[in-house]
Amino acid sequence: MQDILRQHIEKIVSLSDEEFAFVRTHFTAKKFKKHQFLIQEGEPVKYFYFVVSGLLKLVHTDNTGKEHIVSFAMEDWWESDFYAFYTQTAATLSLECVEDTEVLCLLLKDYKKLCDDLQKMERFFLEKSNYGFIGSQRRIISWLTSNSKERYEQLLKQYPSLVQRVPKSLLAAYLGVSRETLSRLSP
Amino acid sequence: MQDILRQHIEKIVSLSDEEFAFVRTHFTAKKFKKHQFLIQEGEPVKYFYFVVSGLLKLVHTDNTGKEHIVSFAMEDWWESDFYAFYTQTAATLSLECVEDTEVLCLLLKDYKKLCDDLQKMERFFLEKSNYGFIGSQRRIISWLTSNSKERYEQLLKQYPSLVQRVPKSLLAAYLGVSRETLSRLSP
Repeated sequence: MQDILRQHIEKIVSLSDEEFAFVRTHFTAKKFKKHQFLIQEGEPVKYFYFVVSGLLKLVHTDNTGKEHIVSFAMEDWWESDFYAFYTQTAATLSLECVEDTEVLCLLLKDYKKLCDDLQKMERFFLEKSNYGFIGSQRRIISWLTSNSKERYEQLLKQYPSLVQRVPKSLLAAYLGVSRETLSRLSP
Repeated sequence: MQDILRQHIEKIVSLSDEEFAFVRTHFTAKKFKKHQFLIQEGEPVKYFYFVVSGLLKLVHTDNTGKEHIVSFAMEDWWESDFYAFYTQTAATLSLECVEDTEVLCLLLKDYKKLCDDLQKMERFFLEKSNYGFIGSQRRIISWLTSNSKERYEQLLKQYPSLVQRVPKSLLAAYLGVSRETLSRLSP
């Protein structure tokens, strides 16, 4: 489990054995079953999660009780209700397992401590955040310019393995279309 | 002009006079007239821009030639085709002045140098990037859950001064609605 995190970080910054050992002490491993919640709307958000295995969905539930999927997270991805985590306010989103999932959990104080004590980790998080921002910007452009068929094709091209693993009803909630519309797009 | 940048940075990290003088040497001041382009689609993206005064629009033009506004930037905001800047690839977006605009320009090598040489600046950019990501995520949630009337009201609540300054046709291109629809929303 440690190797996955190390390989992931070392795609951006290289770490000595001592440095990685120091980084690793800040994370706690947890396992969750399919349908379990890591974050519940209205509750405090303790952790920033690194996904070791499995699949999560980050969900916004609207006033009518309808679920909208903000993002998915699978192996090698980070996920949280990031605003609530970063500002230590109550969650407005929920984070739920689509499959059995193993994560490494990082407290905000340890996120900050890692950035303070090891500049390489601040560089790592800066790079992840910049690419997270770029990814969100692309999704906004996709919403502005593409119809649902095009958005489905873009998702399929960008994340083919994700599309295979995610139930169609969840893909529809991510793309902002009905289950019936999605069926016509993906025969 | 220097004070605006310093005040902006010091909302997140405090700098000594020497540190700010060092930071300031990495920026070049430029002035642009209304309708001038800072970034043109297909061209290299040299700079990350800090807006000192004025108003910019970041635009994606689709295959039919229609303009979609990805974001606006006014005083105290950062803007660029960030993917193209960060990866030093050709712009897929354009950045154009909605008003006469003064900016401070930062090259990628100087962005990296500032992060390397002054950890406070890396912390500053990490914080800005995290809030940029959070802002984009909120806009995605807004698209997933809200109709055009609600999106307009959210924009009005979040950025009242922006809505006053931006021509209605550009607001429509930001909200993804027609000019006629926007007129019905904002009598």
